[in-house]
Amino acid sequence: MSELRWDPLKNNWTIITQGRSRRPQDFIQQRSQIEMASCPFCNGNEAKTPPEIYAYRPNGSQPNQPGWQVRVIPNKFPALRIEGELDNQAEGLYDRMNGIGAHEVIIEHPDHERSMADLTAEEISEVLKAYRTRMLDLRNDSRFRYIFVFKNFGVEAAANVPHSHSQLIAVPLIPPVITSELSACRQHFERKERCLICDLLSQERNSKLRVVRDDGNFLVYAPFASSVPFELMVAPLEHSHDFTLQTDQQLLLLADTLRDTLRRLRAVLRDPPYSFILHSAPPMHLRWGRPDYWASLPSDYHWHIEIAPKLTRVAGFEWGSGFQINPTAPEEAADFLRNSDPTVIY
Amino acid sequence: MSELRWDPLKNNWTIITQGRSRRPQDFIQQRSQIEMASCPFCNGNEAKTPPEIYAYRPNGSQPNQPGWQVRVIPNKFPALRIEGELDNQAEGLYDRMNGIGAHEVIIEHPDHERSMADLTAEEISEVLKAYRTRMLDLRNDSRFRYIFVFKNFGVEAAANVPHSHSQLIAVPLIPPVITSELSACRQHFERKERCLICDLLSQERNSKLRVVRDDGNFLVYAPFASSVPFELMVAPLEHSHDFTLQTDQQLLLLADTLRDTLRRLRAVLRDPPYSFILHSAPPMHLRWGRPDYWASLPSDYHWHIEIAPKLTRVAGFEWGSGFQINPTAPEEAADFLRNSDPTVIY
Repeated sequence: MSELRWDPLKNNWTIITQGRSRRPQDFIQQRSQIEMASCPFCNGNEAKTPPEIYAYRPNGSQPNQPGWQVRVIPNKFPALRIEGELDNQAEGLYDRMNGIGAHEVIIEHPDHERSMADLTAEEISEVLKAYRTRMLDLRNDSRFRYIFVFKNFGVEAAANVPHSHSQLIAVPLIPPVITSELSACRQHFERKERCLICDLLSQERNSKLRVVRDDGNFLVYAPFASSVPFELMVAPLEHSHDFTLQTDQQLLLLADTLRDTLRRLRAVLRDPPYSFILHSAPPMHLRWGRPDYWASLPSDYHWHIEIAPKLTRVAGFEWGSGFQINPTAPEEAADFLRNSDPTVIY
Repeated sequence: MSELRWDPLKNNWTIITQGRSRRPQDFIQQRSQIEMASCPFCNGNEAKTPPEIYAYRPNGSQPNQPGWQVRVIPNKFPALRIEGELDNQAEGLYDRMNGIGAHEVIIEHPDHERSMADLTAEEISEVLKAYRTRMLDLRNDSRFRYIFVFKNFGVEAAANVPHSHSQLIAVPLIPPVITSELSACRQHFERKERCLICDLLSQERNSKLRVVRDDGNFLVYAPFASSVPFELMVAPLEHSHDFTLQTDQQLLLLADTLRDTLRRLRAVLRDPPYSFILHSAPPMHLRWGRPDYWASLPSDYHWHIEIAPKLTRVAGFEWGSGFQINPTAPEEAADFLRNSDPTVIY
């Protein structure tokens, strides 16, 4: 069983995994990359994965058979497991709880060779619908405090399987980054009765300096204090706290924005490794019989996607201080991306 | 001029550097490593660096000439610069200030081939004395709120120059990680009138589960919620808030501990890349005419060194959530290191 651990000095939770447990020899061996003989995410290899949780099968084929366009399966080496109780307890000065959660893989397309940037907007929108479906389903489990979707592309971004996929994790605690964003948004709303992210979008739209793309539906911009080169924020211009409330039509517009943005990154940085993550408000549900303090109010959070190309290495300074060092000004990054040709393929 | 930037959503400061400014082509090219023709940190190449700030010259040779054993120089591509004013100001919802600070390089030994683990305890203690000297000197500049020393070893830990060196950075803000540690220590002290880190050391010493080395002077252990595999904490058993108060004799004992610890990591993980960072209490000085809120009290902080081997890649999950995933339990890591032979060389 994986464990969640808290240390009072760092005030930080770490997931200590098992099943994925790594000994010194594993770290020494990983330096020589191992090529995968046969990809378990490919069409026809459905039997190599755990049974599917969800699939989009436009031609009505049978579960766990070929014919799908998007397929969601449990992660074979999950960081968190769905069975069991939290068993939240102290250990002297420390806290620990069992690693209860869900860890799923969203296979974005049956074709091994096509990355997300190669898909059509319609194909990407089916991936986004799979995110929405799985998020809504996992909200029924009251042990989970937060559910989020992320994607790692490229070996440098720690994608172990090259076949294009995203991941979904449900966790029994609100993650620190989300707590901090929710708290900033809530404080801003209490003082000003406006959404902080709406205000940021409006400032960015007015200055245009850091804007990469503005189609009137979604804004793509390089954040003012970008912690990595070519970091991007993608957010709906119309206020919405919860990704799962997006309609099919809105998801198609988002798919178009994502596709264009990923193609611009590819054109400027030659297929860079990257991660993206979807931040949405936590679902409202009861815990210990009281309304959840962090339950989302429609007015004080604004869902968004953050994209971080993996171009620099995090070293001692960043790790030990919490400051980030970014050698590319976001104004410059936005300028390169704005003026790039998203149809160029390297 | 570099800039420090703050964003209200992330509540995070980023240093946007100039001089080191990176365009897309730089990121594309860096994938093929460039070998250094002639190392500027080597004995005899003193003219290739800016003039030295400090040197340990046991045989009394002239500044900027061969004959040194430890040499401190300004970083040729500093993240922060010493000249100028902070010019702290708002930019709409954002904050910015000029990147004022100091960024120095401590060359640990004239020999290009010897890493810190290869040095004798006496040689390492001269490096530690250089840290102490430079920290004390930079405290005289009241623009600096915090000074810290870190080291990156190996390409994966972003060490650009292979010749063994550490770095010192003075920053005009208390770094977020330090603010958070100081706040945890202060709260613990207010409730219990005991030092949090003294309490942690005592719990670890009693359980022995995660202890790597205990010579009665310094404790080396793998933290309970280690965020990376084989993370280590090195702290003096005798309470002390400020590294610069250590005597020469104490620094020699620390050097012996560090040497042994680095050699154990080398034996178990075959010369892994790593970073270490020294966390000490901020210096007491006045700012805006009032006693600094963060000024160190001797009782509520405890200096220490954190060592993080660079064995895993940070990906979307960690970056977007703030949770860490660690595939090696600290009890297991401590066991491997405790039972290793520090004299083995790979």
